[in-house]
Amino acid sequence: MIEHPSFDVNAWSVRENSFHLDMLAQTESIFTLSNGHIGLRGNLDEGEPHGLPGTYLNSVYELHPLPYAEGGYGYPESGQTVIDVTNGKLIRLLVDDEPFDIRYGKVESHERELDFRDGVLRRTVHWTSPTGRTVKVSSIRMVSFTQRAIAAICYEVEPLDAQVRVVMQSELVANESLPATSEDPRAAVVVASPLVSEEHQAQGTRGFMVHHTRVSNLRVGAAMDHSIDGPSETVIESESYPDAVRVSVTATLKPGERLRVVKLIAYGWSSIRSRSAMHDQVISALTAARLTGWEGLLAEQRTYLDDFWARADVELEGDPEIQQAVRFALFHILQAGARGERRPIPAKGLTGTGYDGHVFWDTETFVLPILTLTLPHAAADALRWRHSILDKAKARAHQLGLSGAAFPWRTINGEECSAYWPAGTAAFHINADIAYAVVHYMEATDDTAFEEEVGLELLVETARLWKSLGYLDAADRFRIDGVTGPDEYSAIADNNVYTNLMAQYNLQKAAEAVKRHPEKAHALGVDTNEASSWREAAEKMFLPYDEQLGVTPQAESFIEHEVWNFADTKSEQYPLLLHFPYFDLYRKQVIKQADLVLAMQLRSNAFTAEQKVSNFAYYEPLTVRDSSLSANTQAVLAAEVGQLDLAYDYLGEAALMDLDDLEHNVRDGLHIASLAGAWTGLVAGFGGVRWRDGSLFFAPRLPDGIKRLTFHIVFRGRHLRVNVTATEATYHLLDGEPLKTWHHGDEITLAVHEAVTRPIAPVKAGPRPSQPPGRTPIPRQARSRSTR
Amino acid sequence: MIEHPSFDVNAWSVRENSFHLDMLAQTESIFTLSNGHIGLRGNLDEGEPHGLPGTYLNSVYELHPLPYAEGGYGYPESGQTVIDVTNGKLIRLLVDDEPFDIRYGKVESHERELDFRDGVLRRTVHWTSPTGRTVKVSSIRMVSFTQRAIAAICYEVEPLDAQVRVVMQSELVANESLPATSEDPRAAVVVASPLVSEEHQAQGTRGFMVHHTRVSNLRVGAAMDHSIDGPSETVIESESYPDAVRVSVTATLKPGERLRVVKLIAYGWSSIRSRSAMHDQVISALTAARLTGWEGLLAEQRTYLDDFWARADVELEGDPEIQQAVRFALFHILQAGARGERRPIPAKGLTGTGYDGHVFWDTETFVLPILTLTLPHAAADALRWRHSILDKAKARAHQLGLSGAAFPWRTINGEECSAYWPAGTAAFHINADIAYAVVHYMEATDDTAFEEEVGLELLVETARLWKSLGYLDAADRFRIDGVTGPDEYSAIADNNVYTNLMAQYNLQKAAEAVKRHPEKAHALGVDTNEASSWREAAEKMFLPYDEQLGVTPQAESFIEHEVWNFADTKSEQYPLLLHFPYFDLYRKQVIKQADLVLAMQLRSNAFTAEQKVSNFAYYEPLTVRDSSLSANTQAVLAAEVGQLDLAYDYLGEAALMDLDDLEHNVRDGLHIASLAGAWTGLVAGFGGVRWRDGSLFFAPRLPDGIKRLTFHIVFRGRHLRVNVTATEATYHLLDGEPLKTWHHGDEITLAVHEAVTRPIAPVKAGPRPSQPPGRTPIPRQARSRSTR
Repeated sequence: MIEHPSFDVNAWSVRENSFHLDMLAQTESIFTLSNGHIGLRGNLDEGEPHGLPGTYLNSVYELHPLPYAEGGYGYPESGQTVIDVTNGKLIRLLVDDEPFDIRYGKVESHERELDFRDGVLRRTVHWTSPTGRTVKVSSIRMVSFTQRAIAAICYEVEPLDAQVRVVMQSELVANESLPATSEDPRAAVVVASPLVSEEHQAQGTRGFMVHHTRVSNLRVGAAMDHSIDGPSETVIESESYPDAVRVSVTATLKPGERLRVVKLIAYGWSSIRSRSAMHDQVISALTAARLTGWEGLLAEQRTYLDDFWARADVELEGDPEIQQAVRFALFHILQAGARGERRPIPAKGLTGTGYDGHVFWDTETFVLPILTLTLPHAAADALRWRHSILDKAKARAHQLGLSGAAFPWRTINGEECSAYWPAGTAAFHINADIAYAVVHYMEATDDTAFEEEVGLELLVETARLWKSLGYLDAADRFRIDGVTGPDEYSAIADNNVYTNLMAQYNLQKAAEAVKRHPEKAHALGVDTNEASSWREAAEKMFLPYDEQLGVTPQAESFIEHEVWNFADTKSEQYPLLLHFPYFDLYRKQVIKQADLVLAMQLRSNAFTAEQKVSNFAYYEPLTVRDSSLSANTQAVLAAEVGQLDLAYDYLGEAALMDLDDLEHNVRDGLHIASLAGAWTGLVAGFGGVRWRDGSLFFAPRLPDGIKRLTFHIVFRGRHLRVNVTATEATYHLLDGEPLKTWHHGDEITLAVHEAVTRPIAPVKAGPRPSQPPGRTPIPRQARSRSTR
Repeated sequence: MIEHPSFDVNAWSVRENSFHLDMLAQTESIFTLSNGHIGLRGNLDEGEPHGLPGTYLNSVYELHPLPYAEGGYGYPESGQTVIDVTNGKLIRLLVDDEPFDIRYGKVESHERELDFRDGVLRRTVHWTSPTGRTVKVSSIRMVSFTQRAIAAICYEVEPLDAQVRVVMQSELVANESLPATSEDPRAAVVVASPLVSEEHQAQGTRGFMVHHTRVSNLRVGAAMDHSIDGPSETVIESESYPDAVRVSVTATLKPGERLRVVKLIAYGWSSIRSRSAMHDQVISALTAARLTGWEGLLAEQRTYLDDFWARADVELEGDPEIQQAVRFALFHILQAGARGERRPIPAKGLTGTGYDGHVFWDTETFVLPILTLTLPHAAADALRWRHSILDKAKARAHQLGLSGAAFPWRTINGEECSAYWPAGTAAFHINADIAYAVVHYMEATDDTAFEEEVGLELLVETARLWKSLGYLDAADRFRIDGVTGPDEYSAIADNNVYTNLMAQYNLQKAAEAVKRHPEKAHALGVDTNEASSWREAAEKMFLPYDEQLGVTPQAESFIEHEVWNFADTKSEQYPLLLHFPYFDLYRKQVIKQADLVLAMQLRSNAFTAEQKVSNFAYYEPLTVRDSSLSANTQAVLAAEVGQLDLAYDYLGEAALMDLDDLEHNVRDGLHIASLAGAWTGLVAGFGGVRWRDGSLFFAPRLPDGIKRLTFHIVFRGRHLRVNVTATEATYHLLDGEPLKTWHHGDEITLAVHEAVTRPIAPVKAGPRPSQPPGRTPIPRQARSRSTR
C-alpha cells in the first residue's frame, strides 16, 4: 500500500493524501484505532462507502455450529466468531439536503493520517456537493488508552464558498449490514444481525442502547453524548429505535462559520451483569470522559504515548520505510495489547474479522516478547487471560485423554474451535509457546506475584500435558509422536524438533518453578516424583539429528521425504494450500513457515553455531513463506548466521506485510504477529537480542542499508537504550541497578550514565542460501535506494 | 441374532419362527432379496411396522453438499447417497375393515424363511384381528436372478374360522417416509422425498410410474401387474397419483376359499433415456415376466441357484452354525454381485443405506476373490464398472497432482465423496487392491478379451499412479510416504508395508501385462522406458523390517510408537474411534483391522514362514477388530501359522458378524465383505488356498471343531472339489483339462475322475498369541458344542 503514490513515508504517521475506493478496505484496517478493549476500523465517519464496517469489543463473539461431513470424537461442535457490535463512530452529514458521500459530487482533496504520537486518526476533506456547494469536513478520532471504555470524535464542518444548511446525524447503530465474505477459508464467518435489542433511549445530546447476543448471550451497552459548538440557531433533536439511536444537529453556516461536534462514545459488555448494571456502567464511563473533555482526552493520549515511545521506540537511519513500518507495528501492537486486561490478543487484534477474531499461538510467540520488553504489564495481562481459561484447557486435555492443560489452537472464549484437527488439536506446541512466554515474562520482570498467582500453575499444567503426551521408548528416548509443529505443510509428524525442544524447556522450567515455590506446588498436587519425571522427560527428550548431512531434521523422517517439485510449481500456485492437497504437502519436504529455524531462535543455545549455519542453509530452499509468520524468523536467523543482506530482505518483507498488503488480505485485518516481526527483525535480528535464564544477550550487526539502529528495552526493572552502527554498539542503562549482559559473547556490565561501547567485527558468511524459485524475498537494498 | 431362540439353524435357509418387533430392522437386512440390480429389504408385505423401508436400484443415488467447517483443496464438494426408490413390494390387507397389522390383534404364528436354494423369502402368518377373525396370510417374494428387472410376490389370504371380507391393496409408493438415522457417522444421510413425479397411470390390474431424482437427475420407472385368483365376485379397482399407484382387490372369502394374487414388479432407471423410453422399458420387462409366469420364475430361480451351488457350495461337518453362515454369506454375495452388470457392488450390497450405499476397497479385496473363483463373470462385471469410471479416476489423480488413475475411496457414481482425507484420499491402496483383483481375475480365467479391453488399462493407469506417488530416495529406495493403509487407526504413515507390497505387485503385473500386449500398450502411451521404470520401482520398493525384533513394521516408525494403553481401556470404549481422538489413535500402536496381516495373506510369498509367525504374534496383541473386515484375515493367518483354534474363533466371528449382529448395526444393511469372510476363513483359512501367477496352492488343515470341509472352486475353466478331513485332503477335478497344483508345497496333478488324496501332517504351533484385554474372539469350540 505504501508503494501507492498517494501515501507518504513519514517517521511518525501513516498519511494518505488522496482517496482511492479500491484501497478502502485495506485502509480501514491500517487506520484502525484500538486500545485492546475497543476496536474501531478506519471506516469513513459517514459510514459509506465501506469495505468492511467494523466495531469490535474484545471477547464479544457469537457462537455457530461447526459442520462436519464426517465427524469424529473430540471435534469441537461450536465455532466462535467476532461480531460487529454497535457502531458508535457514525456521523452522517447532509449539505443542503445532499448526503456527504465521496462517491458523489467532487472530492477536492482528501487526507487521512494515523498519528503514532498523538494516537488519533485525522481526516480532512474538501468536498463539492453535486449541487455545487463546497465544504471542508474534518474529523479527529481516538480510542482512549487512558479511559478504556471511551472513544471520541471531534467532527467539524464549514462552508467554503456559500451559506449552507447542514444536518449532522450522529448515531449508534446495531446490526449494520455487512458485505459477504470471500471464499477463502481463512476469512471470517459472517454472523448476520447478531444483536437483540434490550433497551434504547435518546434525550437531548445523549443516547444509549443495550443489546445481547443471540446464542453466546453477552450483553453489550453503548452510549454517546455530544458537545456542540455552532451558530446560535443550531437545533438539536434526538430519537431512538431498537437498533438505532440518533442525535441530529441542524445549523445554517455562512463561510467562516463552522459546526463542531465532539462525540463521546462509551462501550461496555458482560456475560453476567444485568441490563441496568450495563446501562449504568456505560453512562458512568461517559460521565467521566465528559469531565476530562476532548482536550483532556487528547492530552492524556499524548502523555500515554510519549511514555510508551520512551520505553519502546526503535529508531533507524538509512531506511525511512522500515522506520515508519516499525513504529506503525509498535503502535498497532500497543493498540492490540494495551488495555486488553485479562482478555486475549487476537491474531488480528481488533482490526477486522479475519481468522474469526481468534487468538492463536502467535500472540505468545511473536507479540508477547515485545510487550514483555516494552510494556510488561500488558504481557502479564494476556497471560492472565490464559490462566483464566485454564479450566477449559484442563477439560480439553481430559477429553483428549491427556493430563494437565491443552490450550485451544484457536478460540475467543477459551474453548477449542479449530475444526481441522491436523492443524488444530495436533498443534500441541501452543502449550509450550505459552509456557515459554510465561518464563520469558517472569525472567524479564522478576514479577514473583505473577509467578505465584499465574505462572507456576500455567507451567505445571503444561508440563503435565507434555509428560502425558510423550513417552520413554525402548531406547530410553522421550518421544512425542504424531503432532504438528509450526510448519502447517508438515502436519502430524513424529518428534518435531521445535515441539520437542519447546516441550523440553517447558518441562525444565516447570521443575525449576516448583523448586522455587514448594508450598504452592504442593497445593497444585505436584510431588517430588512428578517434578523429577519432568526433569527426566526433558533430559531424555528425543532430538533427531542427521549425522550424515549434519542437519537437524524438522521432524523424524522429514529428510527422507521427497523434496517438493518447486521447479514445476507456478507462481500463481502460491499459497500452495489453495492449489495442492494437504496429503501431498504433508508428505514432502516443503515448509510453509519457519519451524526448525524458529526453534533455533527460541532455543538458541540448543544448537551450535555450525549447526545453525548448516540448518539454515538446508531449510531456506524448502521454505515458501505461505504464512505471514515466517519472514521475521528467517530474518533473525539469517542475521545470526551472517547473511545480513538476506536478513535485511526478510526484514523488509516482515515489516511491510501489511503496509504493502503482501498477502492481499489486509482488508480482513492486520497481522499483529507479522507486524511484531518488524521489531523482531530489527531487535532480535540486527540487534542480536536473545534472552535466557534471566539474562540478556546482544550480538548486533547491521546490513549495509541501515546506518544506525537505536532501540529500547525494559528488563528486570532497568531501561536500556542500545545504539548500533556498522562498526560498534553502545549500551546505555537509562535507569535501574547495574546489569550484566553480553556483547557478541563478551560479558559487559552496564551502569546508569556509563555508556559501554564495543566494536563489531565484520562477519564472514558463506554463500547466500537460495530460496525456492520465485520465493526469494524482494531485495531490500534495491528497493530502499530507489526514488519514491 | 441366530442366538435368538426364535431362529433355527438350518443348512439351507434362515428361518425365523416367531415375530419380534425389536429385531425387525435386523431381520429386514437379513431377509433382503436382491439380484445386484434390484434390492428389496425384508420389510413386511404390509409395510408397517418397519425398521427401515428399503427398495434400491444399483447406482440410483442423490447428491448432497458436503459441509466443511474448514475446507481444503481437493475436498469433494458433493456427496452421494443411495435413495429408497419406488416401493413395489407393498401389499396392504384389510380384514373386515381392520388393517392387517401385527401390532394389533393377535399373532397366532409368524414364520419367515429365506431359502438359499429356491431364492425366495417365504412368510406365513396366522393372525386374529382385533374383531376376532382369524386368517392365514402367506407370501412368497423373489427378486429374479434370471430376469434382471423383475421382482415378484405371490400373496395369499384365507379365512380360518369365519367368512371375511378382504381388501388387498397392492401399491407402488414413491417418497415413502423414512425414520431418522442415528448419530453414528457411519450411518447414512437420509434424503427426504428424493423423487419428482413425471408420469403415473393405473388401468385394471396394471399400474406404473416414472420419477426422476431432484439433483442427480436419474429417471426411475416402476410398473406392476397382477394375476388374481379369487372367488367369482372379486372386484378389482385401480387408481394412480403422482407418488402412489394402487390396485385394490376386494373379495368375500369363506373358510376354505382363498384370494391369491401374484404381483409382478418391473424396475428400470437411466441417466439418459427419455420418459417414454423408460415407460416402455419397464412395461416390456413386465410383459416378458408375465409370459414366464410365477411358476416359471420360480423354476428359473431354482435352476440358476442349483447351478451356482454346484460351483460354489462349501459343506462342512461338525458346526451347523458355520454351515448355515457360509451358505447365507454365499447367497448374499451372489445377490450382491450376480446381476450388477457393470455397476458397483456396494459395501452393503443393496440391503440397506449404511455407508450411504457406497462402494469401497472391500469389494475388490474381500468379495471379488470369491466371485472370481465361483462366478467369474460377476467379478469381471464389477471390474468393468471400475473401468467405466476410469476417466473420473484419472481426473481425480490429475486434481491431486498425480499421474494415472486415483480411484475414489467411497463412491456410487465414480466421483470421490470421502469427506475426511486421512481415511479417504490418503488410502491410495485401493488402487492396488483393484489391480490385484484384476490380476487375480485374469489369472484365474485366462480371459484375454477382458485383459485387452479392461485389465491392461486398469493396470497401466494404477501403475502410473504408484510411479508418481512414490520416489527413489537418496538410498535408492522407492518410498511411498504419507499414505493410509487398511488400518484406519494408523493413518498417514510412511511406507505402509501393505501399501508398498500391493503397489509393488501392481507395478510388476502392469509391466508384465504390457509385455503381453505391446500394441495395446503402445496405444495407451506406454513405452519401454515407462515399463522399465515400473519394474525399477517395484524392485527398489522400500519394505521396512526391524531386524532386532524380527518383525515387519506395519509402517516405517510404527514400532517406535507407544503401545496403546489397553489395560485402562474399558470395554464400553470400543469401537475406539467413538471414544478417542484420531490424533491419539494414529500415533500409537493400536490397530483397527488387519493391515500387515492382510499383506501376509495377499502377498503370501513376500514373507518367510518364520516372519509370518513372528509378525502374527506381534500384531495380535495390538489389533482390536473395530472393523468387520478384520476377523476373517486374522482367521486366515492364524490358520497359516498353525493357530487353528484361534483361527476357528476368528472364523466364527467373521461368519456370524451379521447373523449375530456383532457390531449392532445390521439394521443399516449387511456387511457383504464381512460375509465374504465366512468363505475366506474356511477356504483360504482351513483350505489354505492361495493363488499366485496363475497357480493355485492348497495347504488345508482343520480345527478340532470341523470334522470335514468340502469346497468348490472354478479355476482356469476347471471345476474342482476339495474334501478335507483332519488327516487328509482329497482333490477332485470335476471337469476341464488336467491341472497342476500344490498340496502343502508338494506338487500334484489333477485330472478328471482321478481323485488325489494326500495326508495332512499334524501342526506344531507355538503358544497362542494374545489379544488386547477383552478383545479375544468368542471361543468357537465352547460355542459350537453348546446345546442350542
